[in-house]
Amino acid sequence: MDPIEFTPIGTIHSPFTDLEGMPIQPAGARDGVGTVVIDPAYEAGLKDLEGFSHIYLIYHFHRAGPTRLRVIPFLDTREHGVFATRAPSRPNPIGISLVELVEVQGNRLTIRGIDVLDGTPLLDIKPYIGGFDRVDGSRGGWLESSADEIAKKRSDDRFI
Amino acid sequence: MDPIEFTPIGTIHSPFTDLEGMPIQPAGARDGVGTVVIDPAYEAGLKDLEGFSHIYLIYHFHRAGPTRLRVIPFLDTREHGVFATRAPSRPNPIGISLVELVEVQGNRLTIRGIDVLDGTPLLDIKPYIGGFDRVDGSRGGWLESSADEIAKKRSDDRFI
Repeated sequence: MDPIEFTPIGTIHSPFTDLEGMPIQPAGARDGVGTVVIDPAYEAGLKDLEGFSHIYLIYHFHRAGPTRLRVIPFLDTREHGVFATRAPSRPNPIGISLVELVEVQGNRLTIRGIDVLDGTPLLDIKPYIGGFDRVDGSRGGWLESSADEIAKKRSDDRFI
Repeated sequence: MDPIEFTPIGTIHSPFTDLEGMPIQPAGARDGVGTVVIDPAYEAGLKDLEGFSHIYLIYHFHRAGPTRLRVIPFLDTREHGVFATRAPSRPNPIGISLVELVEVQGNRLTIRGIDVLDGTPLLDIKPYIGGFDRVDGSRGGWLESSADEIAKKRSDDRFI
């Protein structure tokens, strides 16, 4: 299939400057405050975003290592298919994080609960809409860790 | 910023062959059954995916028209910034849909609640993990339509 080219629309700034020791997911970074700086050319696209309490950030895992189809994720000791995990070593290293939107000022967003590396290239922003995006009673496969366990976990160097 | 190149990992097949008359979001397509066919080269990456009841499909809006930073979405009569909507006419036309995973057979997934056009190029699959992805009490900005209203809405030709 033909390749598709995307160009980042901005940059995510976070407290995390090192791939080791990062929270695994936003649930493990509830208090981490970050900033998203959008290219001023796209600022008009942010109108009315501030009405949403939560947004998805879609970004490029720009520091991901080579693709691995089987991985041992941070939250387990067994090997799983990469599509059954959130590991960055995917064929297309695209990440999504659901974060709390604190404030929009011009082309800058303040966000809470960020779990990505400082300097991550942003590809898209979408509003979180409870009616579409909230699932009650989902089944979590191998990953049935409690939120508490996930919050305590930190990354190491396995995907660098 | 430098462009990033992705190559589809498979194709989403759905009952929707025309951009008009489609459900707006998976919540409006609960019964629509589709199939995802993954490139056999990536089949090993699907191991253990079947344990998850819901998955995110991340795909290319391959039939999106040119970028528009202000749009009148299907669910409203007023103009909003494109990042405050799920409209396809985004700077990077990336879509995400949260669907129910019915079955995995080799490199084929059967999914329920699909809302994309037949033949949509798939970029990534991620498991839905309640502890990361479920938000209680989110605020939905301009889009506070009820699930019932959304389920009744259908697309027209405005983003073609």
